[in-house]
Amino acid sequence: MRPYNTEIISVGTELLLGHITNTDARDISEMLSKIGINVKYHTVVGDNPERLKACVQTAKERADIIITTGGLGPTCDDLTKVILADAFGIRLVENEDEVKGLYDYISNSRNVTQNNFSQAMLPEGCTVFHNLWGTAPGCAFEREGKIVIMMPGPPVECVPMFRTYGIPYLQALSDEQIVSHSVRIFGIGESAVDDMFADEMNAMTNPTMAPYAKECDCLLQVTAKAHSEQEAEQMMEPVIAHVRERLGDFVYGMDVECIEEAVLPMLKERGLRFATAESCTGGEIAKRFTDLPGASSVFLGGAVVYTNEAKAKLLGLDPAMIEEKGAVSAEVARALAENVRQLTGADIGIGVTGVAGPDTDGVHEVGTVFVSMAVEGKTYLRSLQMGSLRTRSYVRRMSGNHAYDMIRRWLTGLEVEQIYKEKDTPYYVLK
Amino acid sequence: MRPYNTEIISVGTELLLGHITNTDARDISEMLSKIGINVKYHTVVGDNPERLKACVQTAKERADIIITTGGLGPTCDDLTKVILADAFGIRLVENEDEVKGLYDYISNSRNVTQNNFSQAMLPEGCTVFHNLWGTAPGCAFEREGKIVIMMPGPPVECVPMFRTYGIPYLQALSDEQIVSHSVRIFGIGESAVDDMFADEMNAMTNPTMAPYAKECDCLLQVTAKAHSEQEAEQMMEPVIAHVRERLGDFVYGMDVECIEEAVLPMLKERGLRFATAESCTGGEIAKRFTDLPGASSVFLGGAVVYTNEAKAKLLGLDPAMIEEKGAVSAEVARALAENVRQLTGADIGIGVTGVAGPDTDGVHEVGTVFVSMAVEGKTYLRSLQMGSLRTRSYVRRMSGNHAYDMIRRWLTGLEVEQIYKEKDTPYYVLK
Repeated sequence: MRPYNTEIISVGTELLLGHITNTDARDISEMLSKIGINVKYHTVVGDNPERLKACVQTAKERADIIITTGGLGPTCDDLTKVILADAFGIRLVENEDEVKGLYDYISNSRNVTQNNFSQAMLPEGCTVFHNLWGTAPGCAFEREGKIVIMMPGPPVECVPMFRTYGIPYLQALSDEQIVSHSVRIFGIGESAVDDMFADEMNAMTNPTMAPYAKECDCLLQVTAKAHSEQEAEQMMEPVIAHVRERLGDFVYGMDVECIEEAVLPMLKERGLRFATAESCTGGEIAKRFTDLPGASSVFLGGAVVYTNEAKAKLLGLDPAMIEEKGAVSAEVARALAENVRQLTGADIGIGVTGVAGPDTDGVHEVGTVFVSMAVEGKTYLRSLQMGSLRTRSYVRRMSGNHAYDMIRRWLTGLEVEQIYKEKDTPYYVLK
Repeated sequence: MRPYNTEIISVGTELLLGHITNTDARDISEMLSKIGINVKYHTVVGDNPERLKACVQTAKERADIIITTGGLGPTCDDLTKVILADAFGIRLVENEDEVKGLYDYISNSRNVTQNNFSQAMLPEGCTVFHNLWGTAPGCAFEREGKIVIMMPGPPVECVPMFRTYGIPYLQALSDEQIVSHSVRIFGIGESAVDDMFADEMNAMTNPTMAPYAKECDCLLQVTAKAHSEQEAEQMMEPVIAHVRERLGDFVYGMDVECIEEAVLPMLKERGLRFATAESCTGGEIAKRFTDLPGASSVFLGGAVVYTNEAKAKLLGLDPAMIEEKGAVSAEVARALAENVRQLTGADIGIGVTGVAGPDTDGVHEVGTVFVSMAVEGKTYLRSLQMGSLRTRSYVRRMSGNHAYDMIRRWLTGLEVEQIYKEKDTPYYVLK
């Protein structure tokens, strides 16, 4: 019987003070779930020896694999290695390679201070994970039937290190394959999806199926366990086909993180390019797309026209028209989409204007947004009311999702504007 | 003796699968730290009755206040209320107001399904927190010397609910005031800051001081406990003055979340406006600024010029110059800054071009970025090498920090271009 249950202990008072978010636990969990290792607990504890010691004891009782993040760095409150080594009766010894590595780092003219050298003290006999992304090494050891892996805290170090060293170290442990696919959905909420499949889900054991809400969309996760990946895939095939059939064109993609990730290859395949003209979203739609490597093949660029002046100067909108119709209007959204398309020579122009809040524009309530898409010979429009209690961040993100959804639906020949008809959602209402 | 130690239990298999990040625990922790309530643990557990029950038992042993997030919603695996009520021997009863609220929600033509009604079952005698941001109510009760607060999981509901109901409910409990200030620093790393103040920090008990790394900058947190807020402030005053003196112009602000938040009021005060021309950052600099309410008073807008075509068409850069110097060059950065300034009539123009990765442009290594700032009569430039192992997200964020740092330093009459001299940092090197 190989170990399966994993606990991730993240060490850092800054996490408990809310200064930073525990993205390490999320990213490690995601990587582990893909190789069939179950994470049962995340624990966050401060830079306090007694409490960390107690958490490690609890983890030893309930988990087979203990992964720590944080507390390996040079600052004076870092103590993870000391506590973990002690909990398993191992002493810390200076690692020569790591000491040498620190000297190399110094000679690269970076700023290494005396306290950096405590980082080179590691549990005796451990497997050392040299840190290519920072200075604090990680490590792993097996003792008392448990596997312990320690990773540095900063996400820019922890994530590539766990991918490079942690996953291969653990991969040999899993004697069954767990494979998972996510069916990504935009246009109906998690609650409606749950309602649609509740009876089926309750009756399923392997594969299983579960809906999850994301900030502005949702997904249905289908998971199968089998002796081989291929067998797991075969088990899921009819389930996924059935789910896609029932959800129809609300499904925007499989195993993608966001709608723009689904749109990128669709545009690429057709050799089409788009450009954006953003008012209330202030660059977020462009930013999201350019988060994706390879964006430049289909995204030309765009304008952030936060003020009326900028709408006129950068995109040539008629100031009199803006004055007459209002900056937040269907007409301005259309003009933004059309003008940015024309100006850049893009195939598709996106225009967005609205009230992201927290203040209103004196005319519309917060969450009023017009999203327009101009293509050869036609300009489409969605008028959205997301509800006045929505946060600025929600309104902006949802506006972007609608823009990308319009592109997606147009590319696949679906109805672009009135997608909800009688199926409105708990999240927003189309007027 | 009033209760102080708090544990936040977040319930949801999606957290353990890494589908979502536990931002609720961070946001609640941040709110609690400001009213002097110490969070000692965050725990994440799946939608599993046995494991949740065990976690609640552990929390009863080590915490005075137990706050749960998640597991109050309508999907079939939601069970937080059942387990918590059971752990304290309380039964669940239907809450009439909440049932009525759900009917009102339906009549607002949103999509409420049958399973939404389980949400109206609440622990007998609890204080009900009506959810204005969604459908699942929160609640609180006191039993066995413990305080239990339950909040829904989606951050857009959890955060405003905890602010509206949770904080006032707990505020009466704290018999001492904890006040905290963060000194925000850009230009030297956490490790160097720690080294600078290590002896002093070790000798301090109240106030205390601790450095924390953020993704692309760092902070020094100064905290004092006292019987009144005023007393705590007085205790911190000389400490903060001393720290600011030693850190000098690396300090960009106090109690702000990011450098752009410090820059906004500085621009506003002087009545100056800026515009952006972004290549490799793809709209992120504009997006970050427009995340701030009130951005429109000082941010005109800008252009996202991801391709050479867009650089020419949207901002009038000379294609021959781009060809000769290369899209990633000091000259293009300068032209972007100057042209967007001129085109929009802004006081300050920002231009950014570089290689965000993961692929190189065939000429420069990943992390090469040119950031330029054009003002009346002068154009400034920083040439950055962040190191080729940096992530795309890091390179883009750091580029934005440099842009805002240039604005800040220019506004306050400091050296804009060569800020590091001999003080380079572990994070990046200025050529």
